[in-house]
Amino acid sequence: MFLRNCWYIAAESREVGREPMGRILLNEPVVVYRKEDGTPVALEDRCCHRRAPLHKGKLVGDKIQCGYHGFTFDATGACTYIPGQERVSASVCVRSYPVVERHRYLWIWMGEKEKADPSHIPDFHYNDDPEWAAVGACLHVDANYLLLVENLIDLSHVAFVHASTIGSADDTNPIIKNERSDDFVRVIREAPGIACTPSMAAVGFAPVIDQKKIITFTPGSNIWIDIPTRDAVPVEGRNQPMERRVMILNAITPETERTCHYFWANARDFDLESQERSDFFLKTVTFAFNEDKDILEAQQRNIELDPHAGTVNVNADWGGVQAVRMMERLIGDEQPRRAANVA
Amino acid sequence: MFLRNCWYIAAESREVGREPMGRILLNEPVVVYRKEDGTPVALEDRCCHRRAPLHKGKLVGDKIQCGYHGFTFDATGACTYIPGQERVSASVCVRSYPVVERHRYLWIWMGEKEKADPSHIPDFHYNDDPEWAAVGACLHVDANYLLLVENLIDLSHVAFVHASTIGSADDTNPIIKNERSDDFVRVIREAPGIACTPSMAAVGFAPVIDQKKIITFTPGSNIWIDIPTRDAVPVEGRNQPMERRVMILNAITPETERTCHYFWANARDFDLESQERSDFFLKTVTFAFNEDKDILEAQQRNIELDPHAGTVNVNADWGGVQAVRMMERLIGDEQPRRAANVA
Amino acid sequence: MFLRNCWYIAAESREVGREPMGRILLNEPVVVYRKEDGTPVALEDRCCHRRAPLHKGKLVGDKIQCGYHGFTFDATGACTYIPGQERVSASVCVRSYPVVERHRYLWIWMGEKEKADPSHIPDFHYNDDPEWAAVGACLHVDANYLLLVENLIDLSHVAFVHASTIGSADDTNPIIKNERSDDFVRVIREAPGIACTPSMAAVGFAPVIDQKKIITFTPGSNIWIDIPTRDAVPVEGRNQPMERRVMILNAITPETERTCHYFWANARDFDLESQERSDFFLKTVTFAFNEDKDILEAQQRNIELDPHAGTVNVNADWGGVQAVRMMERLIGDEQPRRAANVA
Repeated sequence: MFLRNCWYIAAESREVGREPMGRILLNEPVVVYRKEDGTPVALEDRCCHRRAPLHKGKLVGDKIQCGYHGFTFDATGACTYIPGQERVSASVCVRSYPVVERHRYLWIWMGEKEKADPSHIPDFHYNDDPEWAAVGACLHVDANYLLLVENLIDLSHVAFVHASTIGSADDTNPIIKNERSDDFVRVIREAPGIACTPSMAAVGFAPVIDQKKIITFTPGSNIWIDIPTRDAVPVEGRNQPMERRVMILNAITPETERTCHYFWANARDFDLESQERSDFFLKTVTFAFNEDKDILEAQQRNIELDPHAGTVNVNADWGGVQAVRMMERLIGDEQPRRAANVA
Repeated sequence: MFLRNCWYIAAESREVGREPMGRILLNEPVVVYRKEDGTPVALEDRCCHRRAPLHKGKLVGDKIQCGYHGFTFDATGACTYIPGQERVSASVCVRSYPVVERHRYLWIWMGEKEKADPSHIPDFHYNDDPEWAAVGACLHVDANYLLLVENLIDLSHVAFVHASTIGSADDTNPIIKNERSDDFVRVIREAPGIACTPSMAAVGFAPVIDQKKIITFTPGSNIWIDIPTRDAVPVEGRNQPMERRVMILNAITPETERTCHYFWANARDFDLESQERSDFFLKTVTFAFNEDKDILEAQQRNIELDPHAGTVNVNADWGGVQAVRMMERLIGDEQPRRAANVA
Repeated sequence: MFLRNCWYIAAESREVGREPMGRILLNEPVVVYRKEDGTPVALEDRCCHRRAPLHKGKLVGDKIQCGYHGFTFDATGACTYIPGQERVSASVCVRSYPVVERHRYLWIWMGEKEKADPSHIPDFHYNDDPEWAAVGACLHVDANYLLLVENLIDLSHVAFVHASTIGSADDTNPIIKNERSDDFVRVIREAPGIACTPSMAAVGFAPVIDQKKIITFTPGSNIWIDIPTRDAVPVEGRNQPMERRVMILNAITPETERTCHYFWANARDFDLESQERSDFFLKTVTFAFNEDKDILEAQQRNIELDPHAGTVNVNADWGGVQAVRMMERLIGDEQPRRAANVA
């Protein structure tokens, strides 16, 4: 049971081309490709004829031809050609999904089509804004997407999971502020005077820093982590304390109930042209997020071993708990609506 | 739920020897071996004592001895020896299956024994007829056997799946004739004047050919594909148009509901002595049938993702639909009979 | 459903150190480690906060700190520290298990704590008695633990599974005596004048031996196999018949319903100082017990293929049948008691 009326990332822009790519999203097989003019297309990746995945076929102009018996579908999902058949009934089709390409991602709408409003696409402009430099990737995680949501909202884990990469073992007593509305959950962690993280040390910060983390969640599993960092002690030869901002963009698309696609980007407002800096962040954050993957997958296995084992909530869980409740409420709200549609 | 009262292939003759071989057929473990005089034997591959597979044991003369505690069974399945026990009750036994070796295959009957009539074994004589030369193999496919039945009856897929091997991309508008009786389904595809397939080009055919495919299905999942081919345009230095016939024999034995053993042979009526030609067909058809395996396994995964997703039938599906219906009817017919036997 | 009120082996002593080790026992995740003074600790390997396995964390003195959010637990399972939280409620804890280190094993009690009486730990003193020399290991087996219990009580399999290692193909007609009480099952197999086993031949026994096997089972799946062996024919240059004793200790801890941890040790009362002899037994018995693993896992797969396929019991099964019945009775006895505790 997933939230359907929201925008999810189907793929990074660079993954989508003239070679059809299949991916399971919300338990549904989806194929994405580009038309000759570059426009992205997302269709049900299951031929309506014999259920073969269309991504094993090939593109014929703007259409996709099933690699099994040659059924050919246009970008709206309508079947336009069946070998050996003169007429094709209009009912022969696969589902098509609204897609919008924005901020280096292909966003997909898997709910009711008439509700697909591109103005609701999460603001991930940091990913292609000239005032920012971003790197990122997609990580496949064998864990329910909400475990990853909780992970990203409660950054108290950073001091433990990432002490040797992007975290500081010192960062265990932040000042925390929580906010929420109907559409978002926000946690602000302020950590003044902590030992510098290995990744910020590599950037050139002082050994002691002030670091803030503004974490914002919106449904459909998007999380912005805005991290302004500042020297907290003087550095020789530096007149002004160094100040830099990193923005981590996270969007999680459920694959199945127990697996997900984790799209992340690390944007920075400094050293914009430096390839070396980009390589550093790509490498460091990839390493760090694989530390999360390792613990999340172990957590998932433990949950599957005994789904009834309880959990304990503490202050730091406020954000995660709010996010999970918001998702439950929104998923619940969709149920009668869809039942009504069917009837 | 499988059809039981019919002959299935348990193994290729060459696979069966004095080393017991275990294979799961129709969800049942079966062990096959040869007696000292070469007669093949098929027994339940599960010792009645502690359910160890007998194929892990060894042959003692014509008997098979369980490798766990030494229970020894003759070729009828009767237990003739239990270590440390003087008497062996007649009720101690494993199931034995009627088997017949014919046309290079070991045929097994997994239904009611008294109905096992060897005259109903499918006519696969092309496999060892001196007027034909045949090559073949067994391919394990992670897909329900009926997906493979549909694949073989509806050869419209050949133009798409096998365009670079045994098919012609040109072969999408054949003249089709359909026939059926209570015992068979037949589809005849006539394709005059199509571009020659890569495999027939290698045999020396003209660039344009007339090709016919006579596909015959009988229950228990046997499919003959008779393919006469003929030059459709003159070839320099050739007075008569070349005419050749290839017969593809296919028999599918379900392993489980989602996997099967696919036995195939490619027989030809030309170049009978040519090892080179045999090697060519073995290599080409193996490659081509792995193209099928790839699409069938992807189809199976899509079906498992959502078993309720529908399908669309078009003209070309007539044969497959008839075959599946015939199987359903025959399987249904067997149910009361077996219930009565139990009662 | 496992017997809980009994001692199981959680690990070999040498496996437990200052690096936390996770293992699934009776379907529960357990982490074991040593305190700074060497005392072993066993806790639920699932942080009560978000269910991450504690073994992925690290030791802080005698405590274990979750590697996810830093929750820290002492050796009783009480949570003593939550980052960013001033007070920790006494209800925040993980389960702790009574453990006792004895005879080179860490014994764990997974039932009602107040019943954990170390005097009931199986007597495996052969494993560290100076009058014996022992080697051993832990083997992971993909089979229900009771299959292994049956295997070890009914040694009629030795003549078949281990004829080339620790068994004699000749040993199929022993004199058998059976005993049982409420707490143990015993089978005594006496095999006079059998061909010497390969392993005893390597020790220097005559080509014909008298061999006895005294097999004792106690619940919680412990099996002692006491094997006195003696020359049965004269050996040139030997005045007295050689007599030696081997004691095989076996303890099986269920992992899940279909997998188990098999702890075994092979103790001997001769050549106590000989490393060569130790290496020989470690190598030979490891090889032999992998022969068991192979057949047991095949048996388990056959059972899963058709859980309803029946079995046949013969004289040699008396011990196994008694042991399984004893386990069923004891497991049944625990059920109301545990229900009462909950209420």
